[in-house]
Parts: sequence; C-alpha cells; structure tokens
Amino acid sequence: MKKVVFFKKNKPQNLSFLFPKEIKKSKKIIHDIKTLDKSTQHDLSFFDSIKYKDHAIKTKAGCCITNKKLEKFLPDGCLKIVKDNVLFELAKVLKVFYPSADIDQNDFSLKKPIKSKFPKVKFGNNVLLGKNVKIGKHSNIGNNVVVEQNVVIGNNVILGSNLHIKNSIIGNNVVIQSGCKIGLKGFGFIPMKTKNFKMPHIGKVFIGDNVEIATNCTIDRGSVDDTVVGDNTYLDNQVHIAHNVKIGKNCMIAGQVGFAGSTTIGDNVSIGGQAGISGHLKIGNNVKIGGGSGVIKDINDNSVVMGYPAVSFKDFIKNWKKND
Amino acid sequence: MKKVVFFKKNKPQNLSFLFPKEIKKSKKIIHDIKTLDKSTQHDLSFFDSIKYKDHAIKTKAGCCITNKKLEKFLPDGCLKIVKDNVLFELAKVLKVFYPSADIDQNDFSLKKPIKSKFPKVKFGNNVLLGKNVKIGKHSNIGNNVVVEQNVVIGNNVILGSNLHIKNSIIGNNVVIQSGCKIGLKGFGFIPMKTKNFKMPHIGKVFIGDNVEIATNCTIDRGSVDDTVVGDNTYLDNQVHIAHNVKIGKNCMIAGQVGFAGSTTIGDNVSIGGQAGISGHLKIGNNVKIGGGSGVIKDINDNSVVMGYPAVSFKDFIKNWKKND
Amino acid sequence: MKKVVFFKKNKPQNLSFLFPKEIKKSKKIIHDIKTLDKSTQHDLSFFDSIKYKDHAIKTKAGCCITNKKLEKFLPDGCLKIVKDNVLFELAKVLKVFYPSADIDQNDFSLKKPIKSKFPKVKFGNNVLLGKNVKIGKHSNIGNNVVVEQNVVIGNNVILGSNLHIKNSIIGNNVVIQSGCKIGLKGFGFIPMKTKNFKMPHIGKVFIGDNVEIATNCTIDRGSVDDTVVGDNTYLDNQVHIAHNVKIGKNCMIAGQVGFAGSTTIGDNVSIGGQAGISGHLKIGNNVKIGGGSGVIKDINDNSVVMGYPAVSFKDFIKNWKKND
Repeated sequence: MKKVVFFKKNKPQNLSFLFPKEIKKSKKIIHDIKTLDKSTQHDLSFFDSIKYKDHAIKTKAGCCITNKKLEKFLPDGCLKIVKDNVLFELAKVLKVFYPSADIDQNDFSLKKPIKSKFPKVKFGNNVLLGKNVKIGKHSNIGNNVVVEQNVVIGNNVILGSNLHIKNSIIGNNVVIQSGCKIGLKGFGFIPMKTKNFKMPHIGKVFIGDNVEIATNCTIDRGSVDDTVVGDNTYLDNQVHIAHNVKIGKNCMIAGQVGFAGSTTIGDNVSIGGQAGISGHLKIGNNVKIGGGSGVIKDINDNSVVMGYPAVSFKDFIKNWKKND
Repeated sequence: MKKVVFFKKNKPQNLSFLFPKEIKKSKKIIHDIKTLDKSTQHDLSFFDSIKYKDHAIKTKAGCCITNKKLEKFLPDGCLKIVKDNVLFELAKVLKVFYPSADIDQNDFSLKKPIKSKFPKVKFGNNVLLGKNVKIGKHSNIGNNVVVEQNVVIGNNVILGSNLHIKNSIIGNNVVIQSGCKIGLKGFGFIPMKTKNFKMPHIGKVFIGDNVEIATNCTIDRGSVDDTVVGDNTYLDNQVHIAHNVKIGKNCMIAGQVGFAGSTTIGDNVSIGGQAGISGHLKIGNNVKIGGGSGVIKDINDNSVVMGYPAVSFKDFIKNWKKND
Repeated sequence: MKKVVFFKKNKPQNLSFLFPKEIKKSKKIIHDIKTLDKSTQHDLSFFDSIKYKDHAIKTKAGCCITNKKLEKFLPDGCLKIVKDNVLFELAKVLKVFYPSADIDQNDFSLKKPIKSKFPKVKFGNNVLLGKNVKIGKHSNIGNNVVVEQNVVIGNNVILGSNLHIKNSIIGNNVVIQSGCKIGLKGFGFIPMKTKNFKMPHIGKVFIGDNVEIATNCTIDRGSVDDTVVGDNTYLDNQVHIAHNVKIGKNCMIAGQVGFAGSTTIGDNVSIGGQAGISGHLKIGNNVKIGGGSGVIKDINDNSVVMGYPAVSFKDFIKNWKKND
C-alpha cells in the first residue's frame, strides 16, 4: 500500500533554524520527526524517559532532543539537543513541521459519496467523505457518518451510525458500531498558565483485520507514533484508547476499559470491564486482567492479575477473604 | 401487543441435521432456540453454568446443549447434546436459525418519517425510521436519530438527538437523552485464532414505562434472552448495560456504572457512580451499592455494600479507617 | 454581556400560594429561586445539608426551605419554610416557576444557519441552530451538530461533529471534539414509587476560555446553580461532569473521570484516568489525584492522593507494597 499522508508537512528545516541556541551554523537538514526506533539519519527524535532506553541505544536518528540524565544512552553518531523540558521542545518543533496537527480543524472537503466511485459499497443517509477516502468492496456504511480525507477502509467493513473517523487505516472485515470516534487528536499538551501549548498529533490509528469495536468507543490517533488495534481484537462498548497505545492480536477488551497513552498490550490478552491500564506500560502476551483492575506496572506473559492496584489473582483473592 | 419479530428466522430444522454426530436419524424438529426457562418441547436450549441449575431442573426444553458435568441436572424428557464448548455449539446453531443476527448490518429500509402516519408525533431534522416502526402519540423525536425496523416506542416518549435504536420495545413516558445507543449487538463471540466466531444476538431490549436514560448510555440487546430496564428506573450519563442484564423497577443508576452480561438487579436498587457489576450475578431488592464499587458476588436484599471488591458498608468503613 | 435567559420563567408568585400550609396570607412575593449565596430578598432559597452552613449563615435570601435540624443556621431576616424533604419541596416550587425545565424537550426552533448572520463562521453539513444562538468570529463548526436556542459561543471556537449543546455559554478559543453532550438535564429527581418527580434543572454550563474537551464527554447543566469548567482546563475522552460541578482553571482531567454533583475542584488540579469524585466535595488547588482513585472526602490544597478510597500517595504506596 502506498504510504498514506494525513498531515501537510512543511519542507525540511535546517537544524540551526530549529535550535538556534544549541546548534550554531549547522548544515544538517531535518526531514521529519519520528520515534527513536523509526528515525533515520535525516530525522529528529526525542528521548524523555528511561523506559525507552533500549530504543535510544540503537536509534539511527541523526539528532535527538533529550535531557541531561538521559543523553548518555544515545549513540555517538546522534546529535544531542539537551533541554530541560523535552516534550515542550518536541511540541514546538512538531508545530514547525506540522502546523495544523495540533487542533482538529474540521474537514471542509467533506462531500456526499459519489456512488460511481464506490460501486460495491452501500451507503446510508448523510454519509460525508473527505477527499481521497478509500473504501473496499462489500463494505457498508450507516448514517450520519463522517470519514475525513485520506482514510483507508478495507473490504467487508461495516460502519454503524453517528461515527467520526479521521487519520485512520482500517483493515478488512472490521465492524465498528455506532457512536465511535476514531483518529481524533489525543490528550497531549504542555501545561502553561493561561494557555496550554497543544502537542501536534501526527500519528494515525491502525485497525487490523477482523476487529470489532462496539458502541461509543474512542480511539485517539498517535502523537508521533501510531495507535494500533491488532487483528481479531474485540472491544466492547465505551472503551477509551489513548494516543500511541498498541493492542495486540486476538485480545478481548470488555466495556468501559481505559488505556492511558503509549502502553503496549500483547496478543491474546483479555481485560475485564472498567479496568484501567496506566501509561507507558508493557503488558505481555496471554495476560488476563480482572474487571475493575488498575494496572500500574508492567505485566509478564501469561499472568493473571486483578485489583487496584493490580496484583496476582492469588494475592487478590487472599486479600479479599481477609477483608470480606 | 402482537409479538414483535426483529430477526428473520429460518424454518424449523431437524435435530439430526443440527447435530449429525450426536443425533442419528431423529425425526425431532426444532422450531427455535430459547433459554431454559422459556423453552418448550419444540425448542432447543443450552445449559453451560451451574448458576442456572434451578432453571435446568424445571426446563421444558425438548432438547438442550450442555456439558458432561451439568447434564445430570436436566430432566429425563429433555434430550441432551453433550459438548465440551456449549456456547460454541449454541453459536453455530443460532447462526443456522438466525443467519443475520451476528453482525449489525445497517438497515437500508430507513426513510424519513411520513408525517401522516404519525399525526401526533413531532420530529426534528434528519430522523430516519425503518420499516414498521411504531411511535405512540405525543412522543417527540430530536435530530439525527436512527430508529430501525420494527422498534416500538410508547406514548409521551422523548428521544434526544444522535440516537441509534434497534431491536427495542420502549414503554410510555420514557426520556432518552442524546447520544444513546440501544439494542445493538452485545459483546459475545467464541474466541478463535485469526477470526472469532460471532455469537448471533437474537434478543431485544425492553425499556419500561417512566424510565429516564441520560446521555451517551449504551444498552446492548440480549443474546438469546432479552435485556430489560424496569419501570421508573433512571440511568445517569455513560452507563453501559451488557446483553441479557435485567434491571428492576425504581432503580437509580449513577454515571458511568457498568453491568456485565446476564446480571439481574432487583427493584429499588441504587448504584453510585462508576460502580461495576460482574456478569451472571443476582443483586437483590433495595440494595445500595456505593460509587466505584466492584461487585463480584451475589448480594442479598436490603444490603448496603461498597468497595472493590464490594463488602458490607460497615466493613468498608472499618478497612478505610485502618488505611487512612 | 447581557444576561442570557435559557428557561421561560413564570411571573413572581405569592409565598402563601407556594406554601399555603406554612405561610398564611403573606404579602411576600417571590421572584426567583436561587442558591443561598446568590439569593436576594426577593428570592427563595434552599438549605438541606450542613455542608452549606457557611452560605446559610450569610444568605440574603428572603425565604428558605430547610429542615428542623438546619433552620437555626439561617439569619433572622430569612423566613424559614421547615419541611422534611427539602429537595422535594424545592422541586415542586421550581416546577411552578420553570414548568419546562424538568424534561429536555427538543428545540423545534432549530434551523440551518443563515450564513449572512454568521459571516465569519464556517459551518459543516447538517448544522442546526436554535433561535438567538450567538457564535463568535473565526469559529468553525463540524457536522451533525445541534446547538439549541440562546447558546453563546465565543471566538475561535472549534466544535467537532455529532455534538449536542444547550443551555451553555462557551468562551473563546475552546475546542470541543466530536460526540460531546453539553448542557443537558442532570441526574436529579425525587424518588417516587411508580413515577419519580423530576427536578427542574434551571442552571447553565459555563465553559471558560482556552478549554479543550475531548470526544464523547458529557457535561450536565446545573440544577439551581451552574456547572463550570474553568479557563484553560483540558478534559480527555469520556469524562462525565454532573450538575453544579465547578472545575477551576488550568486543570488536567484524564479519560473517563467522573464527577458527581455539586463538587468543587480548585485550580491546577490534575486527575488521572477513571478517577471518580463523589458529590458535594471540595478539592483544593494544585491537588493531584491518581488514576482510578475514588475520592470520598474533601482534599486540601497541594495534596497528592490515590486509591479507592483515596488516601495520601505515601500511604497508598505503603499499602500496595504490603499487598503486592
């Protein structure tokens, strides 16, 4: 598949222009901003948490914003921009490259679908598509649905009603029930007195094949990275998935579960209703998380946990019996 | 009221055709699939959890899918189909009888209301009604509302905006605020590597008289049974009600409460915000459940509980004081 | 700004007419119903909880519904109407003054915007505005949006799609993402066998400048008071704010947080995902509340709390280590 571009990007920038204080008269040109693991020599990256040490050590980024404590982990070939507030610097540079990704402006290119362009797609009433939306054959779309420009939707996909989808790539045989909002800007900003600085969100949402997403779920697009729901994963009603979350394959996520940003969930994970998973965690494969749990640390493969904060199921039952 | 039919059902099936391995050359004809308590001699039922033992003992079902451990509870006159994965067998048979109940295909019979058919109903803009929808007098409907075929709505009902309602029967004097999704398919499937088997959901949602449902609630229809919200029960914003849940009369359910599948709630029950009730539980009458509680076992009439997991209010306060 | 009136109010009423049993042949005329702190000599107020003692002592209300235990706190000049069920009496009097504020009837004055009236506003498809809606310059509105009569929207505001807004005053530079429902009636009623008595909700929602509200949030209007979200406060997806809640400036509220009615939150407060705040609490300035917490008592300025029920962060970690 041709690379899908959702955000207008400005032309490459001289590094000295981006960081005039730190980098004097460099000829280095920055083409884009990417995460540590995806950067090349022409990209600027950022490294603000020890959790990403492994990525930092191996990064191919030509240049990286980081702080005093972390700079030592970056390879020699990577030019370091040392700052106190890494994310604020990142936000400002993102805004230079992607000036319109910090606010979800409405897509005024929306039009009713031209049926001849989608001969094998069925549309309900009041469907609005942005420029260049692709929808695979035998898909059908409900009513009052907004799909913004460049979104890609696979074959045999069923979209319910009252949906809003943008910045997303959706696989085959996916069902998205009514009321979901997918690909909107996540909850990212630099707190400021009187007016926060909004973090541009330049990522996408990827929805794998055979996924089912029930009513009124919200899945934010990634900030620099992408948000991913793996193949054959099912979400129940009112699930909230924050930016950059990656959920594996064959997972079962019950109603009202919430994922904070940048957490990674393995394959075959089942999560009970109303559980909450903190940000920047790594949950292994085949993990079972009980309903209502609050997960605040990484979880190994094949674990069964429950509680707030979540502990092993055995300990949870033991504590419960003590108090019951 | 004439029985309302929401799903196209195939003709009766020979039992040997449904279970060729277990039942050789039977002349038994199965007309429908029902729960243990509602089955007759012509129906196939299913029994997969000891929680339904009382129903099993008394069932009139002509035939029942069950497992080795449970078959002994079924009456002699009931033909047992013994299987390891009862729900998977159920799902497959449901799919034979109701081939279109496993995915919420969009209703392409939707049309703007013909005002002469509803002389005493007020409609906002962009209301879409399926075939054969009934709306009682003095009801009024907001904007961007989708009501699919055969739904029945009582008198003096107020529907807000951006609603999607299907497979539902709604009483009189009901208020449903904007953004609710009622009667869509619940979270039921048989996990499979690469592609789950979707459980057909052939149940309905019943909303009693004088019910109030606040914004962005989601109420799934039943799988084989129905989902019920009793008379004069009020739901606050963002409540999630899974398939087959039965809520009694005069209940007060605060914001963001979640009910897992097949749980039964008595009358006069009040539940504080964000509480979660596990599946297949029985909560008595006049029960009070504190906000944020996680209920994981049955609760007797007149109890007051709180905590995660929920314990008696007295114990909750005692434990809290210990830790505070 | 001229005072915005959202509800049709009946003419002033004689106090003896309102309370014929308690007040015989009074000439006192009641003009309106207000909270203790906002009432004047011509207003009727209500005092039903010791939490509002400070307001009661200083109230200028000409008349106040209260109960036997609380009446002693009201000033001499305030005429006391002593009742067992203060809120029921309040509800009945509210219904006399504001007969249409107890049910969110749909606004049938909605029309497509007349572009010449909003020369500097961009509108998507299927926008519906009630009578007398004001929208500031350079604002832009998405699709399938309902904004009911008299709502005021500031400059540079971005509204997403599938929104329903009523009884609200929204500041400048506000972003409201898709699926939010703002200003609808809150969860207030007097429980009655067979048919609850609905509390009229005559308050508004005030959204300050520079606020961001993410997808599928629900913010109910106040009952007698108003609901407020302060300047530069950001809400993540699926946040639920009940009637009369007041959130200060520069707060960060993560996904799926819920606020029960009448709670006050200070400035610079950050609240982690899925936390729940009970009703009628006072949370100070600069407070941090951990994700998943259940807050059930007041919190002092500068505190860091976590847990269910929430305790100081230090104690939370101590208890966790004990159980882990």
